[in-house]
Amino acid sequence: MLRTPDWYFESIRKLGPKVYVAGELVRDLVEHPNTRPVLNAIAKTYELALDPEHADVMTARSHRTGEEVSRFNHVPRSTDDLVKRAEMAILLSQKTGTCNYRCVGCDALCALESLTYDMDKALGTNYHERLISFLKHVQAEDLACSGALTDPKGDRRKRPREQADPDLYLRVVEKDDEGIVVRGCKVHQSGAFAVHEIIVLPGMAFRPGEEEYAVAFAVPNGTEGLTFVLQETAQDAERRATKVDYTGLPDYGVRTTCMIIFDDVFIPWERVFMCGEVQFTRELVSRFATLHRTSGAACKVGFGDLIIGASYAIAKYNGLAEARYIREKLVDMFYANEAVRGLALAAAYLGKPTASGTYIPDPVMANTAKLASVEYFTRLITTASDIAGGLVVTLPSEANLENPDVGRWLRKYLVGVPEVPVEERLRMFKFLQSWVAGPHLAGAIHGGGSPAAQKLALAALMDLEAKEAMAKEAAGLRKEKN
Amino acid sequence: MLRTPDWYFESIRKLGPKVYVAGELVRDLVEHPNTRPVLNAIAKTYELALDPEHADVMTARSHRTGEEVSRFNHVPRSTDDLVKRAEMAILLSQKTGTCNYRCVGCDALCALESLTYDMDKALGTNYHERLISFLKHVQAEDLACSGALTDPKGDRRKRPREQADPDLYLRVVEKDDEGIVVRGCKVHQSGAFAVHEIIVLPGMAFRPGEEEYAVAFAVPNGTEGLTFVLQETAQDAERRATKVDYTGLPDYGVRTTCMIIFDDVFIPWERVFMCGEVQFTRELVSRFATLHRTSGAACKVGFGDLIIGASYAIAKYNGLAEARYIREKLVDMFYANEAVRGLALAAAYLGKPTASGTYIPDPVMANTAKLASVEYFTRLITTASDIAGGLVVTLPSEANLENPDVGRWLRKYLVGVPEVPVEERLRMFKFLQSWVAGPHLAGAIHGGGSPAAQKLALAALMDLEAKEAMAKEAAGLRKEKN
Amino acid sequence: MLRTPDWYFESIRKLGPKVYVAGELVRDLVEHPNTRPVLNAIAKTYELALDPEHADVMTARSHRTGEEVSRFNHVPRSTDDLVKRAEMAILLSQKTGTCNYRCVGCDALCALESLTYDMDKALGTNYHERLISFLKHVQAEDLACSGALTDPKGDRRKRPREQADPDLYLRVVEKDDEGIVVRGCKVHQSGAFAVHEIIVLPGMAFRPGEEEYAVAFAVPNGTEGLTFVLQETAQDAERRATKVDYTGLPDYGVRTTCMIIFDDVFIPWERVFMCGEVQFTRELVSRFATLHRTSGAACKVGFGDLIIGASYAIAKYNGLAEARYIREKLVDMFYANEAVRGLALAAAYLGKPTASGTYIPDPVMANTAKLASVEYFTRLITTASDIAGGLVVTLPSEANLENPDVGRWLRKYLVGVPEVPVEERLRMFKFLQSWVAGPHLAGAIHGGGSPAAQKLALAALMDLEAKEAMAKEAAGLRKEKN
Amino acid sequence: MLRTPDWYFESIRKLGPKVYVAGELVRDLVEHPNTRPVLNAIAKTYELALDPEHADVMTARSHRTGEEVSRFNHVPRSTDDLVKRAEMAILLSQKTGTCNYRCVGCDALCALESLTYDMDKALGTNYHERLISFLKHVQAEDLACSGALTDPKGDRRKRPREQADPDLYLRVVEKDDEGIVVRGCKVHQSGAFAVHEIIVLPGMAFRPGEEEYAVAFAVPNGTEGLTFVLQETAQDAERRATKVDYTGLPDYGVRTTCMIIFDDVFIPWERVFMCGEVQFTRELVSRFATLHRTSGAACKVGFGDLIIGASYAIAKYNGLAEARYIREKLVDMFYANEAVRGLALAAAYLGKPTASGTYIPDPVMANTAKLASVEYFTRLITTASDIAGGLVVTLPSEANLENPDVGRWLRKYLVGVPEVPVEERLRMFKFLQSWVAGPHLAGAIHGGGSPAAQKLALAALMDLEAKEAMAKEAAGLRKEKN
Repeated sequence: MLRTPDWYFESIRKLGPKVYVAGELVRDLVEHPNTRPVLNAIAKTYELALDPEHADVMTARSHRTGEEVSRFNHVPRSTDDLVKRAEMAILLSQKTGTCNYRCVGCDALCALESLTYDMDKALGTNYHERLISFLKHVQAEDLACSGALTDPKGDRRKRPREQADPDLYLRVVEKDDEGIVVRGCKVHQSGAFAVHEIIVLPGMAFRPGEEEYAVAFAVPNGTEGLTFVLQETAQDAERRATKVDYTGLPDYGVRTTCMIIFDDVFIPWERVFMCGEVQFTRELVSRFATLHRTSGAACKVGFGDLIIGASYAIAKYNGLAEARYIREKLVDMFYANEAVRGLALAAAYLGKPTASGTYIPDPVMANTAKLASVEYFTRLITTASDIAGGLVVTLPSEANLENPDVGRWLRKYLVGVPEVPVEERLRMFKFLQSWVAGPHLAGAIHGGGSPAAQKLALAALMDLEAKEAMAKEAAGLRKEKN
Repeated sequence: MLRTPDWYFESIRKLGPKVYVAGELVRDLVEHPNTRPVLNAIAKTYELALDPEHADVMTARSHRTGEEVSRFNHVPRSTDDLVKRAEMAILLSQKTGTCNYRCVGCDALCALESLTYDMDKALGTNYHERLISFLKHVQAEDLACSGALTDPKGDRRKRPREQADPDLYLRVVEKDDEGIVVRGCKVHQSGAFAVHEIIVLPGMAFRPGEEEYAVAFAVPNGTEGLTFVLQETAQDAERRATKVDYTGLPDYGVRTTCMIIFDDVFIPWERVFMCGEVQFTRELVSRFATLHRTSGAACKVGFGDLIIGASYAIAKYNGLAEARYIREKLVDMFYANEAVRGLALAAAYLGKPTASGTYIPDPVMANTAKLASVEYFTRLITTASDIAGGLVVTLPSEANLENPDVGRWLRKYLVGVPEVPVEERLRMFKFLQSWVAGPHLAGAIHGGGSPAAQKLALAALMDLEAKEAMAKEAAGLRKEKN
Repeated sequence: MLRTPDWYFESIRKLGPKVYVAGELVRDLVEHPNTRPVLNAIAKTYELALDPEHADVMTARSHRTGEEVSRFNHVPRSTDDLVKRAEMAILLSQKTGTCNYRCVGCDALCALESLTYDMDKALGTNYHERLISFLKHVQAEDLACSGALTDPKGDRRKRPREQADPDLYLRVVEKDDEGIVVRGCKVHQSGAFAVHEIIVLPGMAFRPGEEEYAVAFAVPNGTEGLTFVLQETAQDAERRATKVDYTGLPDYGVRTTCMIIFDDVFIPWERVFMCGEVQFTRELVSRFATLHRTSGAACKVGFGDLIIGASYAIAKYNGLAEARYIREKLVDMFYANEAVRGLALAAAYLGKPTASGTYIPDPVMANTAKLASVEYFTRLITTASDIAGGLVVTLPSEANLENPDVGRWLRKYLVGVPEVPVEERLRMFKFLQSWVAGPHLAGAIHGGGSPAAQKLALAALMDLEAKEAMAKEAAGLRKEKN
Repeated sequence: MLRTPDWYFESIRKLGPKVYVAGELVRDLVEHPNTRPVLNAIAKTYELALDPEHADVMTARSHRTGEEVSRFNHVPRSTDDLVKRAEMAILLSQKTGTCNYRCVGCDALCALESLTYDMDKALGTNYHERLISFLKHVQAEDLACSGALTDPKGDRRKRPREQADPDLYLRVVEKDDEGIVVRGCKVHQSGAFAVHEIIVLPGMAFRPGEEEYAVAFAVPNGTEGLTFVLQETAQDAERRATKVDYTGLPDYGVRTTCMIIFDDVFIPWERVFMCGEVQFTRELVSRFATLHRTSGAACKVGFGDLIIGASYAIAKYNGLAEARYIREKLVDMFYANEAVRGLALAAAYLGKPTASGTYIPDPVMANTAKLASVEYFTRLITTASDIAGGLVVTLPSEANLENPDVGRWLRKYLVGVPEVPVEERLRMFKFLQSWVAGPHLAGAIHGGGSPAAQKLALAALMDLEAKEAMAKEAAGLRKEKN
């Protein structure tokens, strides 16, 4: 079943999660200026799934039930599925200019579907069956899922148990016949307060002796013991200080993350997908990372399209759309963005099936795409700044237009080409400001794992001996000489 | 005479400029969260001038009166003066993390001192005498000056008179025995509402037939007809939405610019330093740009010191200060920052006197330094992001600490190495957030002129024929062969 | 039929093309140190086609005859064909470290197959039939083809007919019932003297009035009137000055290009595939460029594998293979190389059929891949230099080892880790020298068209209006507001 | 006394050093195509010292004798001396397009003059007096000096004594009343066979227990036991394979390095400047590095001038000198080159005196300049390639012009704008080829120490604690809060 945006809004309101923003408990997630944009973005995923124009990308046939389901709740069974998965990320970024908030949940589902199959084969456990039941549930109800990996980590030199507080990595503190009790926190969670289900994975590879930390499970939003604390970037504060229409990103805001606190939360066994199997944590994290770095590279492409579009619009407003040096900068932006698109799609096209039949993108290309996305996104941001000119930071608030004493001066002096209303020019500059003078670049660097994580992954994947052998052959150093 | 910060605050309050922020008239510049930080930053220039530790850099002997004056009101008479001028910009950036708001005024004074001398020699005018009188006045009263160049420009394809509204470039609309009346607007003005005197220069090279636009003058802040409208970045709105202590830049905020509207403002002749001499506009703009690009490269170095320091502090909080890959990133940041320092100082050391005896930095090096500052500042920002980790954008507000229900979770989970209080870690992350997810990078790109302007300047300065001759000689293509 | 390397060598010897190297006519192409490596590289394409391990990549089924043919003589009929085409380019670069010399011919065949179909449909000509006959011929005989596009161009400001000499662009100087006579020159031709057939295309888009230049045809090597003049890089001269074993690239040398002079060469009509249809020149060049930029990006990946392998080998010889900073550089090289691989493959995967059923890579991605290959190849080269250390340029000749007086010193002092013979270390350094201190980087920049050409292509392909519309929607500038 | 080029040539011929090139003993250094260019370059240093136009830069007053001496034999006694030292490096690069071969010697003299003073103060030795005597000798005789630091190093994981062969670092093998006997090898020595005196320094910081390696001394070229083996790049081989006029760098060639073997060479005590004082090796290497990185950054600027000039010449030949996109690339090259110039000069201007009164450049800036020179030189090389077009690698030999059969085709088809003779165009392309497809880039990376060495130096020089304190203050984290 595919649900409507209205159903989604109502269902989240009913869940009533405990959410703090800047020290205050949020009364109504649907109305609060910092939570509303996240709900809007997720609602858009429901809206587009119902839109015939986008159904091919936004939905898929469940490989278990044959029903049409949200692609976010589908596990890819072909490279075509992987490609459409990447295209979905691009599309949603284009439509909202922010996170779609469901990628992590989707990638966590896929990684678990694939890994629980392998775990069960190796260990005789029944995690895969549990996961499939859960998958069918979210497909049938068309639930929005989020995923949670990153622990706070405290002192990075120390292993979890060496920390002053062992809870700095989320862990199982009790276990009984019914289920487990978990305690800890997950940070950097994009929009987790606005979904139905939160899927928790271990945030790193754990070692023997660290079994309490090797835990994966799903928990419904609104469960007793869960608390969310929202990020506070300047853009977040700005939404509370002014009309959202004046913030540049009226409907969807900047990407909004939160901390999730797990204050001894009970999880029944049927929702536990790993518990203590430290030897599988590395592979689980690795499959998730491969999936999510592909998604994370793809979503930047949609942002790139918007940044290019905004830069072009501003060049037009300034009368410079045809200037050769501006065109050259636009071409460079286009190139940079298409390079990321190409690499994200290459990761998908080169994907391979795992034992469960679920496809995972090519890990080399996934990590390459993510690294490249950081380099090229930086270029997009700086080139957009360059095209726009200084007004992109020095722009006064659109609120001035409401005051006739000062509004007349803005209308007189902030005009570009005369045929464009000052409101439009102001708004587009403010839109671009949110990109070139906001949290997106830092978000692009760290989302899906920081560059150092991708480099570690690539280091493990590169076959230097094979390349050395090729070089020796080409250099005429043949076997008899060695 | 050197004034005190208290005198400065009081003097600005008395001037009572008309300032709008987000559609509202500011009642008290000293108290308003968006204007106060600018006053604080300028007050710091007074404070440090009185501090024996910094007097050598912050003050100078007037070449006309021999009195000790603020270096901001001194025209450089040696390369040593130019070097100290650059060091002053670095020092103030280190101390405040924002614009010192007096660079443009200083650079405008110097450019005018030098150019009016040449104009008078060529034209028999008495602009230089007027300028010297004005200089003595600001030196004697220790006034803070701002400078204003950039016109709104409207449709960039068109010359001033071709615009739909001829006022899109500031111009003289009346002239009589007493003085002139000017109309127009200057944009991107850093802190102009918080100084005593605003020095206006033409924003570009004008041509015969555009005499009304070729105007330079000084106008006291508070003069009838002047209106200021503040920029509105997210950081500006954030200061109104929360305690300033929670914004990362409590005292000095982000660089705050404004538009200045000149609604038929009268300027007496003794304060007019150019009026109609279009043939001198190119050289005036060029000298100003050479001075200001040196200042603008230098000031980034102080910012760089803060960004490196904050990155290092965060690495410590995370337990990673000794990690080899973090050290390498810090070295790269240090290198990047020192490269800008070296180029700004090279511009100063290679400076030459103009006919009036006032020194101007080397124009090739000034433009080179500014261009390099953009490249290296981008590297600083992205590397700082990389070192800090995702929390630099996902950090919740320090305000949560005041609410015991949620504050306890932040205290438990946002700790790094256990010996550092959570408040300190939060505040340093928020400080760095303002750099890596704020308007500084875009500001660095455009402050002192966009990169395209520096490239145009360099194109005019490079002697390709000389280099071609060298290449021909080295290639063995000697004269007899040509 | 698939031919053997021996057949190939003999067949070229029989053709007896007229080839000049450094002012001297080459007597025996098979023996001359500058022509032999090109023959070796082409022979390798025959060898690998017969190798079961590589047959899948190196051969294909002709879509016309169903016979197994060299993939170089096959036109791609699916994205899988395009992917294998790219993989073939990678494989050959890995095996030889130089150009395979058949890419241009293959890409020219494909572009003509596709375009002649469209021409015939539009014009009622019979070019496609001629091309198919020619294709069957080269498939049946397993001939090696080269392609030739670039004209000398003289004064770049001028159109062909405005040049002092109209022959600076190759052109038809006579036409009769039998065929045409062409005059001119093609430059930058990789290995054209060592193939059986040379396929000539127009080098740019011509305009009405320039019909004589709009000509495409195939000409057998050895035809009366053809003269080849080889490039002369330092590496080319070095092969004549010393034993080829001491040059670092003993068997295959550096990529060897030549000029081809057409001194009034007669071409019978059945080998003419375009003659005067200026309106199709842009599309022909564009299709060729799309194909060839994909090939040209792919081939750099194989080079990259060798450069990484050589860098790793040298790190081992120096005892530094495990040093963390060396590993990080190797990871960066791996990332850079995989990015190019991903983009070349993305261009293939995103390919689309043309009207004839022949597939062409995605033009946006092909141009993106080529541009990225230049950026990343530069990084590979400089990082390889960095890893290798100064000896990569200061290495003495291996010839010293033959002289006992000096050889003993090299054996004593040029040892790295003691278990590797000095000869091996010397040879690998010399191999890498050819990459980091040779013509490859400049070749990578210009092969397949200079970066400016790719930017022009991308400028024509980008849809800025669509992106602007997206940006307006995301910025809340909806239709009713415009 | 200032000697003449003729005296220099004759004096080197008389010294008769033992030099091997590609396995053969060189009979006459003045005539051999690989040694002659080095002598030409050094002769140029004599020629320009006698040229009144350049005397100010090329000569100085000895601070000991007051005589006019070559600046290469002068120790800087002021920042002005340091600036002129850098300008000399630039000038010579402009004039020859290659190494001046005397920088290392000069920098070694300066470092020793300064350090021996400190050693004597600390240890009561008389090294400084010996050094001053030696300095007066080279000044009086106007001798050319080279310097030698880098040991072969074998297995980089191991300290000198752990190597399979302890001679892999040069060391003292005997000592008696007369002097010492040294054994070992120095690699990467630019032009050492063509000077009068070779000054040897330790190549790294040695530790207690490694006293035999802590040795510095001067040895006259031609001394018994010295053998030189020349590098063999492709350009070196090319000089032997063709007329030097056809190599692009007819007179001065590429930078020519050699290995120097010390086969138990006797050094009398009066020429020994360090012997066993391991505790001073780090500082000696560091001062030398500071001096030499400044020189090495500076010399790239002269090369940059030539590369820009050659690119511009080629743009002219191609008819593109006025094309906007070419101008923009030239501006970018100019910017890149001036950035290096500025940083080299900044290192000089910021220099400080050591205890002996001799000035050393600023070490932070020296290392910064060297690192920047690598980045910017890479940009120069790739941009020059881009401007030139593919002919820069595909160019046939000028030797073809001598053969009328083929020469007529080159004259017809390799013409650019018609007014420039084909010879000139060919020669300039070949000249640029030597830069963009030769050993210069790799040389720029490693000359004066590889980038890793500069990063280590900067890591030791950066004061992170001070920057952290600044950041805390700006972030509002004042003392009472810590």
